[in-house]
Amino acid sequence: MHTELPKILEDVVNAFTRLPGIGRRTALRMALAQLKKSREETRLMAQALLTLAEQVKFCRICRNISDHEICSICSHPKRDRTLICIVEDIRDIIAIENTGQYNGLYHVLGGIISPVEGISPSHLNIESLLQRLQDNEATEIIMALNATMEGDTTVFYLYRKLQAFNIKISTIARGVSVGSELENADETTLGRSIINRLPYENVFKK
Amino acid sequence: MHTELPKILEDVVNAFTRLPGIGRRTALRMALAQLKKSREETRLMAQALLTLAEQVKFCRICRNISDHEICSICSHPKRDRTLICIVEDIRDIIAIENTGQYNGLYHVLGGIISPVEGISPSHLNIESLLQRLQDNEATEIIMALNATMEGDTTVFYLYRKLQAFNIKISTIARGVSVGSELENADETTLGRSIINRLPYENVFKK
Repeated sequence: MHTELPKILEDVVNAFTRLPGIGRRTALRMALAQLKKSREETRLMAQALLTLAEQVKFCRICRNISDHEICSICSHPKRDRTLICIVEDIRDIIAIENTGQYNGLYHVLGGIISPVEGISPSHLNIESLLQRLQDNEATEIIMALNATMEGDTTVFYLYRKLQAFNIKISTIARGVSVGSELENADETTLGRSIINRLPYENVFKK
Repeated sequence: MHTELPKILEDVVNAFTRLPGIGRRTALRMALAQLKKSREETRLMAQALLTLAEQVKFCRICRNISDHEICSICSHPKRDRTLICIVEDIRDIIAIENTGQYNGLYHVLGGIISPVEGISPSHLNIESLLQRLQDNEATEIIMALNATMEGDTTVFYLYRKLQAFNIKISTIARGVSVGSELENADETTLGRSIINRLPYENVFKK
């Protein structure tokens, strides 16, 4: 059985339910919380969403979300233009930027190859990457995709596509997490970390 | 360290962060998911929020959320007007309605007394309840508040206020959950369920 909500509330609950990870119960809690706030605050949320729908831009070079035609990373004079890091989406850019260890450029694929979800290479920003490499200072492409089967498939696909270019291709290191105990690492990760062992000095390099 | 987002996205993330239980990480995931949807869908969400901010009404009688001045429960001709069930908020109405076991009216307090959160009786819809009882067919008030210290405090406060009226006051039963095993029930609940034991026939009453 399902009790009917007033339509005004139902519309908001429905909208929230379509967000990832939000069930009906949470959506209702969120809608009621929003109701307890001032009208002004709810208006601001609505306005932010409208602006997002109508004014968002994607960087012409790397497909990062941007306020302008070229994003703040691509247009930054101090970034290293010889490095391009391939990521799935903007969240990965944020994660890598937060490490403070990378000063190159990015290229946002907008997804990874996933036959299960029906995402094929043609859905991704791969053509624009190949275009971009035509006349470009890049000397190395770093693959920073999830360490999953889909991620590996995408890396392999890109690896073959990029053979045509005279460019170095690397992937971010996989191994035992910093701070974790060996007995807790899974066998595959531990096995790979032995095969891909590093010179002692490299590990503690800052 | 915290990487700056494009302002358009940042505004939406900030708005989502103010919802209950939504941290910055989840808010970003939600905003990016919204971005992947059609503009039309994002516009609909914004519109639903605007309507909520500007057109929501609270029932003049019971303070339930409503599309009209009197809510669908208070205006329903078949509801039993001799019963008023006191609840904290509209979610409790939905939960009780979903049981299909109650056919009376409600009164929404809009919260419960909580010194910790600075919620005193004056913040709740208690005055309107007392007003409502002045000229009314109600013969019984059912307290359906959370079985917490705050809930109990509120029940006690209302109990004293309602002494002035010639009306029966009851609270919903507390006891071992249907379907659960005794050894898993906490001592207080189990103790109360012995003290407030029911005639055999009552337990299986539909």
